[in-house]
Amino acid sequence: MNRVLGLAQLSDDEITTLLDLSDRFAKDGIPPARPGRFVCGLFFNPSLRTRTALEVASLSLGAHCIVHDVGAGVWKIETRDGAVMDGVAQEHVRDAVGNFLSTAVHAIGVRTFAEISRPYEECRKDPVLSAIVSASRVPVINLESAIEHPMQGLADLLVLRRHKPRKVAITWAYHPRALPMAVPNTALIGFARAGYEVHLCHPEGFDLDPMVHEQAGGNVTVFEDMDEGLRGVDVIYAKSWGARGEYGPKGHAELRVPHKGWIVNRERQGNAAFMHCLPVRRNVVVTDEVIDGPNSWVSEQAHARVLTQAAVLHELL
Amino acid sequence: MNRVLGLAQLSDDEITTLLDLSDRFAKDGIPPARPGRFVCGLFFNPSLRTRTALEVASLSLGAHCIVHDVGAGVWKIETRDGAVMDGVAQEHVRDAVGNFLSTAVHAIGVRTFAEISRPYEECRKDPVLSAIVSASRVPVINLESAIEHPMQGLADLLVLRRHKPRKVAITWAYHPRALPMAVPNTALIGFARAGYEVHLCHPEGFDLDPMVHEQAGGNVTVFEDMDEGLRGVDVIYAKSWGARGEYGPKGHAELRVPHKGWIVNRERQGNAAFMHCLPVRRNVVVTDEVIDGPNSWVSEQAHARVLTQAAVLHELL
Amino acid sequence: MNRVLGLAQLSDDEITTLLDLSDRFAKDGIPPARPGRFVCGLFFNPSLRTRTALEVASLSLGAHCIVHDVGAGVWKIETRDGAVMDGVAQEHVRDAVGNFLSTAVHAIGVRTFAEISRPYEECRKDPVLSAIVSASRVPVINLESAIEHPMQGLADLLVLRRHKPRKVAITWAYHPRALPMAVPNTALIGFARAGYEVHLCHPEGFDLDPMVHEQAGGNVTVFEDMDEGLRGVDVIYAKSWGARGEYGPKGHAELRVPHKGWIVNRERQGNAAFMHCLPVRRNVVVTDEVIDGPNSWVSEQAHARVLTQAAVLHELL
Repeated sequence: MNRVLGLAQLSDDEITTLLDLSDRFAKDGIPPARPGRFVCGLFFNPSLRTRTALEVASLSLGAHCIVHDVGAGVWKIETRDGAVMDGVAQEHVRDAVGNFLSTAVHAIGVRTFAEISRPYEECRKDPVLSAIVSASRVPVINLESAIEHPMQGLADLLVLRRHKPRKVAITWAYHPRALPMAVPNTALIGFARAGYEVHLCHPEGFDLDPMVHEQAGGNVTVFEDMDEGLRGVDVIYAKSWGARGEYGPKGHAELRVPHKGWIVNRERQGNAAFMHCLPVRRNVVVTDEVIDGPNSWVSEQAHARVLTQAAVLHELL
Repeated sequence: MNRVLGLAQLSDDEITTLLDLSDRFAKDGIPPARPGRFVCGLFFNPSLRTRTALEVASLSLGAHCIVHDVGAGVWKIETRDGAVMDGVAQEHVRDAVGNFLSTAVHAIGVRTFAEISRPYEECRKDPVLSAIVSASRVPVINLESAIEHPMQGLADLLVLRRHKPRKVAITWAYHPRALPMAVPNTALIGFARAGYEVHLCHPEGFDLDPMVHEQAGGNVTVFEDMDEGLRGVDVIYAKSWGARGEYGPKGHAELRVPHKGWIVNRERQGNAAFMHCLPVRRNVVVTDEVIDGPNSWVSEQAHARVLTQAAVLHELL
Repeated sequence: MNRVLGLAQLSDDEITTLLDLSDRFAKDGIPPARPGRFVCGLFFNPSLRTRTALEVASLSLGAHCIVHDVGAGVWKIETRDGAVMDGVAQEHVRDAVGNFLSTAVHAIGVRTFAEISRPYEECRKDPVLSAIVSASRVPVINLESAIEHPMQGLADLLVLRRHKPRKVAITWAYHPRALPMAVPNTALIGFARAGYEVHLCHPEGFDLDPMVHEQAGGNVTVFEDMDEGLRGVDVIYAKSWGARGEYGPKGHAELRVPHKGWIVNRERQGNAAFMHCLPVRRNVVVTDEVIDGPNSWVSEQAHARVLTQAAVLHELL
């Protein structure tokens, strides 16, 4: 394993290796097996779990962790090849990452959301992550890009594997802003490939990319009615995302507004467990009653983030 | 000891234990007695001494320290129970702290000033700190909340204990902005309970909360004339704070403006020592001559912040 | 050695000691020779290489590194003596650094650019760095001030020493904004004193300070024509800077605009090696072809930043 960019790029064996290692860390603690190694987290966007998990996992492994906020503590970064840099970006990724950072550390983690104000066709190429991967001389870890969030996906798979459900619904929920699709993309790919029977629920117009459906394979049924899609499942995995039609400078929030009723409440939950990657808008995406209820796995998921992050770093450092 | 929220909540014995430990650290150095433990500092506001002291103390103890700036590197946090989160806050404290952070680290330090633009009656309930304490599964350390600043108070008590004064004046001073009351509250409670004879000096309308006076007990005399209150004391502890009437959306800075003359200068200092928690507005709160003079203890106070922080972490980790 | 403020203040022997140590670290690795020591990086401006190098070097030496962003995570700092602090700055450098920070750590690194919106005569006194040096009780390291960037200069000298060129051109290049002069100042002083024959190329009106020319000594020839100055040199060291006439509130960008043609391209490069401190505006300062070409030393320079930073910390901690 020389990088982790998405579940779509990992083999089943690689995923199993990472989950087995995570479970061993849960049981025996994370061993200080990588002393003197350096990880750099490059954050183009805010983060709580990912940033904390990266730091706790690195330091528990005996490694060092440096965190940079792009555009705040460090320079704005240009990622387009051949750009004439007379605008706001002060440094090119080839210099920031290629000529420097990857000569100074042993692995680079990158958090870079989709820029929803740009056309979807651009975002789906994952331009920032791709540019960093091209430039870097050391392994890159995707800490959520425009297309995938494999660190979340591994944590979710770890939790699912412990509980052994059969049917898992991944459902869209309302949110005041258009959010990236990385989490549902990774969940769809990861859950379907792991053999769960997946119900993918979203309003019309909010479909995930056909490329992602292809990577997920055949275990997926799509529902455009939330109640129907949640009926009889063992787990409800909720997440909001923006429609492809919302990308671009105009936004088109009117596409989302009619679907304010897509919230996970007690009635819809039934006997299913509830999962969410966090952060979550309470009483918009899910009611307090569900997320604070006995069948909520959100804390187990969040805690698993440290374990799977440590497993990935253990393999790459 | 399973948390440190305010001097009001610590027993005399607990305070003495922490001060004794701090003095031992001053003499012998801080021992690396807590290897592998994790502290997270959650900063809703800027800080120099508190942030540095938390990092130096944690690392000296052999522990790791992670620092998050809420609303900058990490998500904005909602603290009200039952909120419908369709506004700017992206994450609820129950998820950020309860379901995640307190599963990943061993203690959480929180810096959260009073929001003076909100009504005083709200601030005095210390809503953010209280919500974090309710949510957390691990010990919480108050790194200055709306109501108390116990890390500062312990450092101040350490300095006072070494110098053995009898009479201590806590005096209001002018400042261009309305500041929180946490420092004078904690000083009043800590100094009075430690047996010093306290002169509390402030203009009319700038009284501290009756709850705080009650926690401080009987060793306190209030003066509404600065010169009278400072006469004959051994120590002058200066600090500015906003009047209760300044809280709320309107501000009412006109309450402070008439009191620009409340500055500690050489004439008023006499033979007394000078203390201030820093940061301080020089030549507004205190003249250069006093703070840079031979009877200034501000540097000893600041340095004590590392020692008392280490003592608290030693007990809680 | 008890501080590193500029190459102008280091003796030839001190520079050689630091470069020899850096080369030893390159060969044998950086030894954990300074356990338990604390470095604080105080950043008034953004930084990628400097911040990363400070952290990697400190941690590799076994020391701890604390990084503060002035005005973001920590308070705005006043540096003028005797100021009546009723403005935006919340804390004076005498308190932030003198009375606190330098009692808590063993060395302080400072990044503080020239404020080009202020008159040049103010900037050339290096007011912020000077105030911090006056206030600090521990060694100060200049991580780029208004006048010098010695950490960059040491890295550049390390690279030059390995390659043994004879003639080095330091050339101005166009840039959309007026940048500080610290890098060319240090390069001029360092390269000339090290015995390289220096061609200093810049448009009329963009001369470096006479004080800097004096510190550099006699090995320098000035060219106001780029092509002429680059002819026959072994190394081209490119950098943009603002004219002295651009300092002050008005800016006067019109001084720079006529010189958009000052770019290092393949034709001008000839057989010379290319150097730049980074970050660099690609296709404005230098073409991709040159910086990505086989004769580009920018990555070697950037990597050397960690080595020379470690050497400086090794001597000062």
